Parts: sequence; C-alpha cells; structure tokens
Amino acid sequence: MADFELMRTLAQSAKTKIVLLVMDGVGGMPVAPGGPTELEAAQKPNFNRLAAEGCLGQMNPVGYGITPGSGPGHLSLFGYDPLKFDIGRGVLEAFGIGVEVGSDDVAARGNFCTVDSGGRITDRRAGRIATEASSKLVEKLAKIKIPGVEMEVRPVKEHRFVVVMRGPGLSACLTETDPQKTGVPPLPVKATDPKGEKTAKAFNEWIAQAGKILAGEAPANMLTLRGFSGDPRLPQFADIFKVHPACVAVYPMYRGVAKLVGMQGIAFEGDTPEDEFRAIAGIWNDFDFFFIHIKGTDSRGEDGDFDAKVKVIEKVDAALPALLALKPDVLLVTGDHSTPAKLKSHSWHPVPLLLWAPETARPDAETVFGERMCARGGLGTFPTPELMPIALAHALRLAKYGA
Amino acid sequence: MADFELMRTLAQSAKTKIVLLVMDGVGGMPVAPGGPTELEAAQKPNFNRLAAEGCLGQMNPVGYGITPGSGPGHLSLFGYDPLKFDIGRGVLEAFGIGVEVGSDDVAARGNFCTVDSGGRITDRRAGRIATEASSKLVEKLAKIKIPGVEMEVRPVKEHRFVVVMRGPGLSACLTETDPQKTGVPPLPVKATDPKGEKTAKAFNEWIAQAGKILAGEAPANMLTLRGFSGDPRLPQFADIFKVHPACVAVYPMYRGVAKLVGMQGIAFEGDTPEDEFRAIAGIWNDFDFFFIHIKGTDSRGEDGDFDAKVKVIEKVDAALPALLALKPDVLLVTGDHSTPAKLKSHSWHPVPLLLWAPETARPDAETVFGERMCARGGLGTFPTPELMPIALAHALRLAKYGA
Repeated sequence: MADFELMRTLAQSAKTKIVLLVMDGVGGMPVAPGGPTELEAAQKPNFNRLAAEGCLGQMNPVGYGITPGSGPGHLSLFGYDPLKFDIGRGVLEAFGIGVEVGSDDVAARGNFCTVDSGGRITDRRAGRIATEASSKLVEKLAKIKIPGVEMEVRPVKEHRFVVVMRGPGLSACLTETDPQKTGVPPLPVKATDPKGEKTAKAFNEWIAQAGKILAGEAPANMLTLRGFSGDPRLPQFADIFKVHPACVAVYPMYRGVAKLVGMQGIAFEGDTPEDEFRAIAGIWNDFDFFFIHIKGTDSRGEDGDFDAKVKVIEKVDAALPALLALKPDVLLVTGDHSTPAKLKSHSWHPVPLLLWAPETARPDAETVFGERMCARGGLGTFPTPELMPIALAHALRLAKYGA
Repeated sequence: MADFELMRTLAQSAKTKIVLLVMDGVGGMPVAPGGPTELEAAQKPNFNRLAAEGCLGQMNPVGYGITPGSGPGHLSLFGYDPLKFDIGRGVLEAFGIGVEVGSDDVAARGNFCTVDSGGRITDRRAGRIATEASSKLVEKLAKIKIPGVEMEVRPVKEHRFVVVMRGPGLSACLTETDPQKTGVPPLPVKATDPKGEKTAKAFNEWIAQAGKILAGEAPANMLTLRGFSGDPRLPQFADIFKVHPACVAVYPMYRGVAKLVGMQGIAFEGDTPEDEFRAIAGIWNDFDFFFIHIKGTDSRGEDGDFDAKVKVIEKVDAALPALLALKPDVLLVTGDHSTPAKLKSHSWHPVPLLLWAPETARPDAETVFGERMCARGGLGTFPTPELMPIALAHALRLAKYGA
C-alpha cells in the first residue's frame, strides 16, 4: 500500500488538479473467444486519444486473485490497504445517506425480507420493494424504543435500510442475521466477543419488536441485519496526501466511502455522466482532487448485459470533453474492480488504468484503452493502493526522497 | 528489497563476472508528443544489439511515484531498501572525498553562501564559486578549534564542502541550518533529541567562528550545514552477495555510496566512458563485480538539454566494445533514477533496464533499448533492490532454494 508515513513526509500542496474518474467494475472479458472486452468494444475516441498521449497499466485492488467488494475496491483506489482497513457495510451505508456513526455507535445494513408462516425466509429482498414502500416501514420501525440505547433507522434504496444504535459500552463484534439462503429463519445476533453481549441483546430486542410491527405487512414482513460496524476512524486522505478532495457520485454507498476518508460529498442535480462532470465544473476552483464515480458500468456488468455496459462506457466517453475542458493536470481513468458481463459479478481480474498527464506522463507504446493494451502498458501491473503516490508524482506534489 | 538472509544462504562464489553500468538519470521522456525519449533517440548500435540478445525491464528505485535522490537511488541498485537504510548526505559526501566517518563521528555537508549586511542569505550557493576559491576558504576554516572535539573540513566541488566532528558523546540528531530560501538568515543547529545537545552546541560555536573568518570574503561570506549524519554501518555487500566488488566513478559522491557498502574505489586517469572502461580492464582479474558510474546523463538531464543527454548515451555506446571485449558474464545497463530533460530534475518514472548475459538470459521480444520497450520487456516492472538477486542468478551464483 501507499506508505502513509512516507506520503506525509513527501506530499506537498500545489496548484495542480487531479481527477480520479472511476467507472465502477469497468474491467471486463470477451463473451466470445477472440472477441473484445466491453472496454475494447466501446467506440471511445476520447479515451483512446488520452491512451495514446498518456500511459496505461493494470491494478490489483486487494491482491492477486481476490475479488473486491465495493468498499475495499474504493479504499484501495484512495491509497488504503483494504486488508488493513476493514470497513463494515453498515457504516458504509450509513455514511452514504448522511447518517453519522459516532465513535461509540454501531451501524448495520438492513434488508427487508419475506418470511412464511413458519418464519422461514422465502425472499431475502422482499421482491426488491420500492423505496417509497420501504420508507413507510422504516417510519414504523423508528418508533421502537430499546432501554439504554438510542436507535436511528433510515431508508436507503428499495429493500435496504440502515439502523444505527447509540449508547455507552456498545461493540460491533456481532454476527449477522441474514442466513444467506431461503427456507430458514433469520439468525439471532450473537456476540463474537464478550464486549458485544450488551449490543447483541439490544439488537435482538429491536428485531423482535420489528418482527411484530412488520408481521401484518406484505411482502416485507421481516428483516435481516448485516455488516455490524463502528466508525473505523481512518487516517484522513487530506492529511496523508495534502490535497483538498471532493466526491461526485450518484449512489450513497460511494459518497459514504469517500466521506470515510474525509472527502467532501458534492450535491448536484441529475445522474448522468454529463451531470456529474457539470458538478465537477461547478466546484473546480474549490478543490484540487476530484473523485467521480460512474455506477452504470458495474450495474450492467452484474446484469450480464455486455452491450449495455459498452454503451455506458461510450456515454462517459462522449461526455468527456466537458471534463477535459477543465484542464486537469492529472486524469486517472479506472475502476474499483472488474465486473465482466460474462460473469455477471465482481471479479478478481486486474483493473485497466489510463493515466493522462500532458506535462509529466511518460507515454508508452499503447494507443487504445483496453484490457489487452493495459496489460502491456508503461505503468506495469501494480497494487491499486500505489495509484495515489503515482497520481501525486505526476501532479508534481511529491518531494524527492533523500539527497 | 533483496532478502539479505536468503541471499546470505544462497549466494556463492564463482568465477563469473558481473558489470553494473549505471548511466545516472538515464530514464527520460519525449519533449514533443509522440516523440522519442533521450534513450530512444540515441544512435546506439551496441546497446541495441545487447537488447536484442538480452532482456529488458523497468525498475522502481524507492517506490511507485517516489523520486529518488542519488544516495537512495544507488543503495537500491546495490540491493538495499532505501527506506530501511537512510544515509545522510554528510556521510555520503565525506566518504566520496575519502574522509573517514568513524562510528562516533558526525559529518555534515556545507555550502558556502552569500549574506547581506543583515545576515540574510542572498545566494544559497555563493554564485557557485570555483573549487579553488572554495578550497582556500576551507583552509581558513580548518584552523578553527572547538574545545572537546576535533574538526576536519574538506572542500568537495564548487561551493560545497564537508565538515566532520569527532569526539566522544556526539550525535547526528540535529536540524539543518540551510533555510532553503533567501531573504532570511541561516538557522541555528538544534538537537532533535537530548543526546544531540552537546553536538549542536559545538557546531553552533564552530559556525560562529566560521562566520567571523568569512565576514570579509566575497561572494562566499557565510555557510550553511546540512545532512548531519553518522556512519550508518550498513551490512556489507561482499558478505551478503559473496562477490568482490569494485567501483569506477568520476564523482566523489558515487564512490562514497559504493564505499558505504564496502566496494573498493578504483583510482584512474581521465573522466570519459573510455577512461572508465580502461580502468575496469586494468582491474578485471582482481574483482568479480564492477560498478561503473556515468554522470553525464544526469547532468545533461538536469540542464534540460535533451540533445546533450542523447550524446552522452551515444558516447557510452561508442565506448562499449572495450567493455564487452572483457567478456562479462552478466552486464546490467540501467540508471539510479530517471532525469528527463523535459523536467530538468530527477523523477519518479520507472528506470529502464537492459540485462545481457549471453549464456543465461532468456531473451524477450524487444530489440531496441528504450523506455517504451523496457515497459514491455521480459523482466517486467519490479523494485530496483531485486536487481542484485537477478544479477547473481544470471551469473549462476545463487544456489537452489529448497530440495
């Protein structure tokens, strides 16, 4: 990973601006032997020009062969070793919707689910009920009182919500209640450490009361809790790398992980790449590091829709001139992990990287942005957390090491 | 870094000979879009033949994105992790001019500077005064007596000199006096640890007396001290790698760092690549590891003179037949870091590497020695300290690991 002590010593402020453009799950695979990947198939004249002028490479977010979740994938892009800094999904979701998780609090991600008359789960996502319906259920759950603690429950999207428990002596050393399969009831919360006993008891009480409230509802007549977690108190991005960072992302989850490292989330209208780049233009003078998150590449990859994923990449490419017009000093185009449409899921394949820095990048021999080209690129194959030092170097923000 | 314990176990003596030819700062960049780098632009038929017969790669001396100083860059080439073995500039300079730094001594690098009537620095290098003028000032400073310690002052080159303090109870835990800017006076030496108090006081006394002696001089009427450091007592190269190493270098600094790891510096006439290769021929039967340092590539890179840097590379190439006539078993051609003429400074870009070993190298598909080709070379991209194990392996000097 990036050596934080070394970065703190060498990183220095400058007027240069760095853009980290993340197309979630951009890395792909051919669907037919000898065919192109999604990125290679896309018509993307802007990206290809940048590839010819800049430098390519490929990155491993967590380790060779390891498939990253969204949290580890992004932490890694921000320079943090995801094996060292483990962030619970509960905290990520909470931060994403603007719910604070204090130093003594425990957050969990909730799913509404459907159970049969015997309490056995028949649908782990309650038919992905609409966010509006989910919000009404959350309002009811918000009335539950548990002695000795305070509870905050908030809707996220569709069947997902967040619950945060606040009070003295809590601990996130807890097991999840989602059995990860249907035909069995939700599991009780158990403490994995004696210091979690009180918290487990309080959560089980809350779940029991919630079960009574939901019993008459359909299809969401029960819930599960996952990702119990507290504030990981991460070292702050701005302190380590001496940048003033902003985040432009449509989905709460990604604003959440960015907020965890201290990036300022930017509110904006719309949800297209054009909208996101317009939001960047609006704050261009106020920050010097810009994290932009594009979700569609991952969503269409998980759908298994190769052509739709190609189209998302093409849309980002078409919108790119507005971003380039801002004249970033360093532009990084990459993903947090690969999501090949062929596999319909996140994968362990190295993530393609394009680095463009007109004044400081050493061009390689590659002229097209694609996985095959990135594998031969001038930046080589390296661990994703090293991207930040590379980015700072190309922005002339790292002092020389030693005389 | 090279695993010293593993090396000590596996390395073995042999009759094979290894040459490490370092063109300081050889890595470069195009000055025009799509153009060649300095190395790519050079007419270098000998290097290109070796590239075709051998194997290319690229290396990171300190870490991804980190720009190395000369000390760390060379330590790394010698197999030492420069983040673990931190050598002060004072010691490096002292060793380079043959001044001993004993286990209790503290060395500093001095700069003559110019101050105005208010004691404020107006030129941190006193107009880079000639070495002869500097030597005369050093003679005067050599007369200063400080109770309880012995002082040795010696000229290096231009405005630079070395001062070594000897005596019991000294410590290099000291702050530098160069404020790194003009318009302010030199700073006092301060101890960063209580054990440095005595040393700080003695250096401040010496500086006060030096100031009186220099007061009537021009332009060098004051001095600053940097890089306070003691003998780092490095593990010795010969012990770790089981070679008998020699160093041929024109500049003191590089003989200094080679001496730190126990290489024997070779005195020779002249300062061209031909002269250096002739010096190697003269000691060919007495050693089995030869570190040759070529300075011009770095100097012309720092000047921002692309064409002159190209010419230095061409001169080394033209002289190469004399080196090849010695029939080294392994020849490594690389740099301690990149110094692109475009940036006029050391840089973080990976350093191109050519490995030629007619009996043992596995050739790759590349046929020209250049940065774009090295990025695709058979040795991949790797940390510079791993070069030594690779060199020993190609010299058949490493035993098999495990049965």
